[in-house]
Amino acid sequence: MSRFWSPVVHRLTPYVPGEQPRMTNLIKLNTNESPYGPSPRALAAIRAATDDTLRLYPDPAALALRQAIGRAHDVPAGHVFVGNGSDEVLAHAFQALLRHERPLLFPDISYSFYPVYCGLYDITAQTVPLDDGMRVNVADYMRPCGGIILPNPNAPTGMALGLADIETLLTHHRDQVVVVDEAYVDFGGESAIGLTARHDNLLVVRTLSKSSALAGLRVGYAVGHPDLIEALNRVKDSFNSYPLDRLAQAGAIAAIEDREWLANIRERVIRSRDRLTDSLGKMGFEVLPSCANFVFARHPDHDALTLAQNLRERAIIVRHFRTPRIAQWLRITIGTEAECQALCDALADITAIPRA
Amino acid sequence: MSRFWSPVVHRLTPYVPGEQPRMTNLIKLNTNESPYGPSPRALAAIRAATDDTLRLYPDPAALALRQAIGRAHDVPAGHVFVGNGSDEVLAHAFQALLRHERPLLFPDISYSFYPVYCGLYDITAQTVPLDDGMRVNVADYMRPCGGIILPNPNAPTGMALGLADIETLLTHHRDQVVVVDEAYVDFGGESAIGLTARHDNLLVVRTLSKSSALAGLRVGYAVGHPDLIEALNRVKDSFNSYPLDRLAQAGAIAAIEDREWLANIRERVIRSRDRLTDSLGKMGFEVLPSCANFVFARHPDHDALTLAQNLRERAIIVRHFRTPRIAQWLRITIGTEAECQALCDALADITAIPRA
Repeated sequence: MSRFWSPVVHRLTPYVPGEQPRMTNLIKLNTNESPYGPSPRALAAIRAATDDTLRLYPDPAALALRQAIGRAHDVPAGHVFVGNGSDEVLAHAFQALLRHERPLLFPDISYSFYPVYCGLYDITAQTVPLDDGMRVNVADYMRPCGGIILPNPNAPTGMALGLADIETLLTHHRDQVVVVDEAYVDFGGESAIGLTARHDNLLVVRTLSKSSALAGLRVGYAVGHPDLIEALNRVKDSFNSYPLDRLAQAGAIAAIEDREWLANIRERVIRSRDRLTDSLGKMGFEVLPSCANFVFARHPDHDALTLAQNLRERAIIVRHFRTPRIAQWLRITIGTEAECQALCDALADITAIPRA
Repeated sequence: MSRFWSPVVHRLTPYVPGEQPRMTNLIKLNTNESPYGPSPRALAAIRAATDDTLRLYPDPAALALRQAIGRAHDVPAGHVFVGNGSDEVLAHAFQALLRHERPLLFPDISYSFYPVYCGLYDITAQTVPLDDGMRVNVADYMRPCGGIILPNPNAPTGMALGLADIETLLTHHRDQVVVVDEAYVDFGGESAIGLTARHDNLLVVRTLSKSSALAGLRVGYAVGHPDLIEALNRVKDSFNSYPLDRLAQAGAIAAIEDREWLANIRERVIRSRDRLTDSLGKMGFEVLPSCANFVFARHPDHDALTLAQNLRERAIIVRHFRTPRIAQWLRITIGTEAECQALCDALADITAIPRA
């Protein structure tokens, strides 16, 4: 508290990201990073861009990157907005498109940054409870609102909504923007990007932090009708002309163009997820059906926070949210095969449940 | 215009950055970049960080970088805030510290992003005219206000204010934040960072885009009392947890630690600036005394916009602002010796004034 703070600062409840420990030798399954490194082509492109041209500002419009994204999704570059991680893209979307008189709707169990943005931009929100199966039920969103935002697959549940449901939302709310946050879509969800061609109220947000294994580079983007993109650009150009540095632009282009690498990573993660789901199930965990690079699991006989603390002592970190409805759940990122194995061994040890 | 836009989007007048042409072979004297590449140690550090660890999120608190900045300025890391270019740092400062009931004060001729931030955050501003010599006169700022922001040296004039004047502002406005934007201070200004120890209402903003020759990397920072830094962190953590990617953190640390390189660059630019000022003066230009890596100049017999256009045809770009009071001035970045020479030759050719 300080007399110098703008009034808004006093009422903020900032987002708390998952721990980024400085120590190595940890099995880090807490922030949904890729267990595998990024495309070698992305690394090569970054090294090639690491030269005296760093003295020059980057392209403020990131045209080459937007064109590469456009080619990957078969949309014109003018339908693409890029930002410094999808968190920045989301922040601009909240300010530019979701701040209206009527309340914004999002699930009660969802990405915990959404209410934080509402605080920052003074947006009224109404959370919509997931149903008893922890699913988004689109019928619950058929009410007057100023906009809707949904992760699909949802985080931290990992559960995905079909495109028919997304389209129901879009059709019912023709005068509101529906933001679909597809951070995890590459691991088994269906992308709504194809729907942007016929729904001018749809904005799809993506990140290179998960399936592209570039969390450390900070690149996210959005695809939608040019009117929506213009709103994002107007805010971006009133905030920071050059949000994406030269290395991020170069690395992201190469990563997006290396589709073979992406397909391979995706497949490996999905395979590991299926095996982990199976192993956890055999140990008595309830595991929600995940379309993401993490699983959301609970055990009827073991307190989630205690489990997380015991894992931490064994140098394995998973994410636990001290949040109503999910305080008995753990969100566990899919690691390498060896990491998943180590996790199961540790859980067997902690719970004294023999491994199947 | 679109029914989907939040009301704020309609009233924005976004900032227009200097042109970043994609063509090469231009003499680019329009955006105050360094004519010399960055520290080789910075490039080496970036290359070393370009590996599989890019799959992991960066340190959200950028502790190692804040420590390096702290060592460079002899302040604790807790007095340092870092962001994705000083434009992002400024944006957060406007939202976190400069949004009050009373109007924010800044010079009428100044960084043209300031009024844009006011539009974005709905901040009332009063511009304070520079005096007839294009100088900031601190006596003009002795009025009730919600805060003050000043570039020092000022842009686009290049003229600097002494620390006694800064301290007068700080003492008179003990309950308001005074932001001193020191983007260009390394080229001849006096830094106010030392004053932060005894003035809890002072925030000094810096960038690595100018004297550190890293415009392409996007790193800026602020130094001030921990209460001010906390406000910036609260906004940052409500906007984007990880604004600085791994490569930017690694490169910035190495650049800041290479003080010898910085001293060398600074000296070369100042020498070229003195020579260019002299040459332009001999051609009849009025050149303001600059403490920055650019000069602000006008010619009594030649229209500034026409000069800029004629230079453009000769593949030399300088910055012209279509703004009251300065429409007859050109802002010219200090290039290499050869570039400054080419500029003078081109101006001699255009104006038919023989070179001295």
